[in-house]
Amino acid sequence: METYYRTHPCGELDREDVGREVVLNGWVQKRRDLGGLIFLDLRDRSGMVQVVCNPEVSAEAAAFADRVRGEYVLAIKGKVVARAEGTVNPKMKTGEIEIQAEELNILNEAKTPPFLIEDDTDVEEPVRLKYRYIDLRRPVMQRTLMLRHRAMQVARRFLDQRDYIEVETPMLTKSTPEGARDYLVPSRVHPGQFYALPQSPQIFKQLLMVSGMERYFQIVRCFRDEDLRADRQPDFTQIDIEVSFLETEAFLSMMEEMIAEIFRETIDVEVPRPFPRLTYREAMEKYGSDRPDLRFGMELVDLSEIAKDSSFKVFASTVASGGQVKAINVKGQAGWSRKEIDGWEAVSKELGAKGLAWMALREGGNKGPVAKFLSDAEWERVREATGAETGDLLFFVADQPRVVADVLGELRLRLAQELNLIPEGVYRFAWVTDFPLFSYDEGEGRYYAEHHPFTSPLEEDIPLLKTDPGRVRAKAYDMVLNGYEIGGGSQRIHRREVQEAMFEALGFTIEEAREKFGFLLEAFEYGAPPHGGIAFGLDRIIMLLAGRSNLRDCIAFPKTASASCLMTEAPSPVTDRQLDELHIALRKENSVKK
Amino acid sequence: METYYRTHPCGELDREDVGREVVLNGWVQKRRDLGGLIFLDLRDRSGMVQVVCNPEVSAEAAAFADRVRGEYVLAIKGKVVARAEGTVNPKMKTGEIEIQAEELNILNEAKTPPFLIEDDTDVEEPVRLKYRYIDLRRPVMQRTLMLRHRAMQVARRFLDQRDYIEVETPMLTKSTPEGARDYLVPSRVHPGQFYALPQSPQIFKQLLMVSGMERYFQIVRCFRDEDLRADRQPDFTQIDIEVSFLETEAFLSMMEEMIAEIFRETIDVEVPRPFPRLTYREAMEKYGSDRPDLRFGMELVDLSEIAKDSSFKVFASTVASGGQVKAINVKGQAGWSRKEIDGWEAVSKELGAKGLAWMALREGGNKGPVAKFLSDAEWERVREATGAETGDLLFFVADQPRVVADVLGELRLRLAQELNLIPEGVYRFAWVTDFPLFSYDEGEGRYYAEHHPFTSPLEEDIPLLKTDPGRVRAKAYDMVLNGYEIGGGSQRIHRREVQEAMFEALGFTIEEAREKFGFLLEAFEYGAPPHGGIAFGLDRIIMLLAGRSNLRDCIAFPKTASASCLMTEAPSPVTDRQLDELHIALRKENSVKK
Repeated sequence: METYYRTHPCGELDREDVGREVVLNGWVQKRRDLGGLIFLDLRDRSGMVQVVCNPEVSAEAAAFADRVRGEYVLAIKGKVVARAEGTVNPKMKTGEIEIQAEELNILNEAKTPPFLIEDDTDVEEPVRLKYRYIDLRRPVMQRTLMLRHRAMQVARRFLDQRDYIEVETPMLTKSTPEGARDYLVPSRVHPGQFYALPQSPQIFKQLLMVSGMERYFQIVRCFRDEDLRADRQPDFTQIDIEVSFLETEAFLSMMEEMIAEIFRETIDVEVPRPFPRLTYREAMEKYGSDRPDLRFGMELVDLSEIAKDSSFKVFASTVASGGQVKAINVKGQAGWSRKEIDGWEAVSKELGAKGLAWMALREGGNKGPVAKFLSDAEWERVREATGAETGDLLFFVADQPRVVADVLGELRLRLAQELNLIPEGVYRFAWVTDFPLFSYDEGEGRYYAEHHPFTSPLEEDIPLLKTDPGRVRAKAYDMVLNGYEIGGGSQRIHRREVQEAMFEALGFTIEEAREKFGFLLEAFEYGAPPHGGIAFGLDRIIMLLAGRSNLRDCIAFPKTASASCLMTEAPSPVTDRQLDELHIALRKENSVKK
Repeated sequence: METYYRTHPCGELDREDVGREVVLNGWVQKRRDLGGLIFLDLRDRSGMVQVVCNPEVSAEAAAFADRVRGEYVLAIKGKVVARAEGTVNPKMKTGEIEIQAEELNILNEAKTPPFLIEDDTDVEEPVRLKYRYIDLRRPVMQRTLMLRHRAMQVARRFLDQRDYIEVETPMLTKSTPEGARDYLVPSRVHPGQFYALPQSPQIFKQLLMVSGMERYFQIVRCFRDEDLRADRQPDFTQIDIEVSFLETEAFLSMMEEMIAEIFRETIDVEVPRPFPRLTYREAMEKYGSDRPDLRFGMELVDLSEIAKDSSFKVFASTVASGGQVKAINVKGQAGWSRKEIDGWEAVSKELGAKGLAWMALREGGNKGPVAKFLSDAEWERVREATGAETGDLLFFVADQPRVVADVLGELRLRLAQELNLIPEGVYRFAWVTDFPLFSYDEGEGRYYAEHHPFTSPLEEDIPLLKTDPGRVRAKAYDMVLNGYEIGGGSQRIHRREVQEAMFEALGFTIEEAREKFGFLLEAFEYGAPPHGGIAFGLDRIIMLLAGRSNLRDCIAFPKTASASCLMTEAPSPVTDRQLDELHIALRKENSVKK
């Protein structure tokens, strides 16, 4: 029998099509045999439609239908008819009609799949990943991939319309001594030498600015051979952007517009602009995080001023030794049992705190270890600062600022989840700015560039480069959404004297800098324009858009946490001949070979 | 001085802007000092404009201008004024105006670049590649990259509009035993195991069809570790497409439309459709090539029938032993000297011919070694077949068909170049179809799949799979343009019995096939739809669109013929620590290390 090609997608037929002759192609979702009639639910990318095979209409079609099983691929020729009154299915888009089969062609048979093709599944993820081609038949996976497709098209169109040029940067590039761990590729032509897969196109996009391309973008794969977490993949996709001769404010506003357009066109959400701004310092102070989730309050309150004179020794001595005392107000939870509170203390200790002090504002008076140490005047100040009312529970952490931020920042998130304080379908964007330019490595006794050594300091902090590098703030900006960093960028240094001061602060001579950053530095001597840029994490944006919690659900063929592909079984051993050609050998202890 | 950001691009100002206050940013193309006035040509991506620094307008700007050298980056604030009558430059788009500088800010200084920023350059390519960031400032390079950008946007928009979904496929995948040589990536987490960089997303796009994605595309980087030729790169970009449930004719027509849209929107050329079709056999017979250049004639003419009874023994015996005698008619070149003809014979021998017979149709009669062996009747038939007239020159090759095709096919191209027969700005597309499904390996005494073992045979040739595989034609199609293959695709096998016959012809048992093609074959058992697809070579298409002859001129940061990047010096040695982490060692003879 010949192959019939479809005239219509299954999922888009409705009442208006009644009487139409159609050819459909698709997979059998379900087959039911009801008193001689065979009903088939036929599924394609667009949706599902019911097909009736009636031997009185076509004995041949009905006979073929009898052989059909789930996931068989069919071509069906037939007529769209209205369903009888009682059989209309209002839950299906095509529920008012069905197809009366006149011809039925089995395009392909199928073994029984390892799991059902439906949105809700309790199949273990490893099984889904091994049979990814079946997993991707589930409508929810198809919707996610289509959303990803749409987001990419919108981003590119937006940038194209604003004269950004898509340029492909090299995938086989040079291994750099700093940054994350590189994936390496041995060279066959150059024995003993290696390419590195790019961690990002950072250097190339800056070179494109030196080239006068002015506006660059690319949706590009990047590679980092780091130990994976739930929300990491060995390779990931960036929307990568760089621009010359554009003021930072105008650029940030354009990026807000791009993200808003993506949200509008993929999930029909109108994102309010401009996005609020928080300095790094404000974010750390109020939320204990540089990527705060702004969908709820429960801000961190600094009580150090009050605590420093308190009779509670732990508080006073912490402040005296340069630490902080901060609190969060868990509204309405004064009634928690000692056991519940102990649970949260255990969490705090896991997160690095020495302990978790608390005070419950019960009807009968304040309870908990902190209560008795506070004078009335102190308590009044604490009450005012935290906005605490009867019925509330205060948690206190006293420690070095980093620990306080880590512990209370994370407690804030977990409490909000526990207490259901996070509204669904809400998208709270912000820019976090003014990041520190350097971090100090105690062990090595030197400063490191927090981003990279080409990130520009704030104008007003340039003098501090020589006197107090730790206080220099960067012209760096992260876009955060609902507790995730979704993009990060910066203005780059383009003035030689600033670059030199930067290297000096990092403890490099110009010669050392040249050795580390060679050709980029050389390029900067031939007329680098003022420039800056940003990179967005596409995978994470899709995860948030699709309302998923697992990054792997947003990638067609993802890797596991051990960087394996369960479907293809990559990585895998290779032949001796392949190794010989690449001039490498396995270490003796690992002589796994094909 | 503060950084001024531009209000206008340099190259777009004209008479209409006279009187306007503007800020421009760009690079100094040229600086001339004429009697106290300093003239600067300021260049940005959009073009160039002349700036006049007159100390009477601004002493400060003029003083800064005095310090300026070529490729300095400037911000200029000034007024657009009309040029004086005699100084209008009709060759410049902005030649009717100039900018009277009121403020001038040196955004960055520049060393003297190693070569001038202009379209025509005689700089050696290695210098251009080392200083690629300067090379890319040349307007011709910027135009090529912008054309590439535009072509990509048009292709994606076209496919998006037709419901193709862009899906990113894995970059770290599994090494396959067949095909070209893989680039390998050692795994740190799995000692002794390797990823391969994808040679193409072939398997993944077919799996996406099994997944019911129905229409897929991706503009994607592919990797092949082969010895490079002038028109090859270790990584290259494909427009990769796959579709289910669509008839081949409709698909080919859609692909023609896509290519036509790219030509229309990038170089404003209207491509006639439908494209002519040639079978593989016709292409080989008429042009000696499966990617014929159709911009000129000089077709190969088969004279075997005439030659087989000829008294010219070389001809007769060649045909008797299964060979061919074919000729091309070099119009109007009967006057070539013996020396010139000997030159072409030498070329033919380099190409694999045993010799090159010829006949010059001079006024005084036919000259050359073939002439005397042809009877009048034979000559009459040759004359008719070749369309030869007085003044023409015939070249003959007698050999096995493969050699005849190779030699005359290549002679045809070189003669056309030599004789300037190839019109410029002409684009002659065609589809070459009906490729052989198999090639026979004499050494191993077995058939190999010419494309891959999932390529569908022509329906009518399926019975031949068992009886005469060498004659089976594939449902494969190449798009050719001006002598280049720019795309290649096929309908895939989706019926199990055909797949089994295919494996049988290849000499595999099902078990062996499963070992070689594992998960793809398994996937095919769960309901594979009829599907097919194509991949276009983007780099080559851009080369043809941009009218360049060097593929490297169409890639921002290309590799050399030895797969090196002269700018970054990749590949390069890596540290012992990196090798240790990857569980590999260098072969002793190659202990080049950092």
